[in-house]
Amino acid sequence: MSSASDYVLHPIGVVRSRLTSRAEAPRQGAEGAPEAWVEVDPAFAGALAGVAAGDEVILLTWFHLSRRDVLEVHPRGDLAQPLAGVFATRSPDRPNPIGLHRVRVLEVAAPARLRVGPLEAIDGTPVVDVKPVLTPDDG
Amino acid sequence: MSSASDYVLHPIGVVRSRLTSRAEAPRQGAEGAPEAWVEVDPAFAGALAGVAAGDEVILLTWFHLSRRDVLEVHPRGDLAQPLAGVFATRSPDRPNPIGLHRVRVLEVAAPARLRVGPLEAIDGTPVVDVKPVLTPDDG
Repeated sequence: MSSASDYVLHPIGVVRSRLTSRAEAPRQGAEGAPEAWVEVDPAFAGALAGVAAGDEVILLTWFHLSRRDVLEVHPRGDLAQPLAGVFATRSPDRPNPIGLHRVRVLEVAAPARLRVGPLEAIDGTPVVDVKPVLTPDDG
Repeated sequence: MSSASDYVLHPIGVVRSRLTSRAEAPRQGAEGAPEAWVEVDPAFAGALAGVAAGDEVILLTWFHLSRRDVLEVHPRGDLAQPLAGVFATRSPDRPNPIGLHRVRVLEVAAPARLRVGPLEAIDGTPVVDVKPVLTPDDG
């Protein structure tokens, strides 16, 4: 059932944000990140049916500026902290740099755009999935 | 910075579970899913440094048996429910079939294995990332 092509992500949209560099992006959305737009490719508009303002959703993004050969980092870039494995951190540098962002949908606009917030991903970040939050402690 | 190869996921491990088919898998971990092992490729063992029994983590998997051309589904496979966009559901059939699983680490074993639970992913499901849960309502 599996082949190499099974593992190729197809971006379904892109983040449009006033954040334009990793340096200015908060490390997490709750740390002062702004609102942003998710511009979904109209080819996937049907997949948004039922997504509405007020919903909490989980955006999955592709950290396109990340390094994939990093296995250990100083958490939060703080050299005073000992090295930790990237699977014990939320570092964007990791073998598969998928970003996970819990945001609220603030507006749904034609043809297939979502205003969301807070979102720490920078302008131009590819979006690969949108999932509903199922429970208060949902992953 | 982006090229097609940027979007290729490299599995970092695999799920070993008594669940062997989608038909027998619960739809969500909290719906009676069993414990399972995540066998991490020893090449990525360094990335697990700091992951310990008791931790809550988010596993990202690749739903290798999924259809990627499905944009709308009947939620939970219930034909009595109206069609909804897959981005408004947790259907495994979606354009980028990444699974999101919040689990607890029950045991860390050599060389790079995690016993976790509850996990609804079936035996053989590729694992592409492990992230710590940051806050109670973390995505």
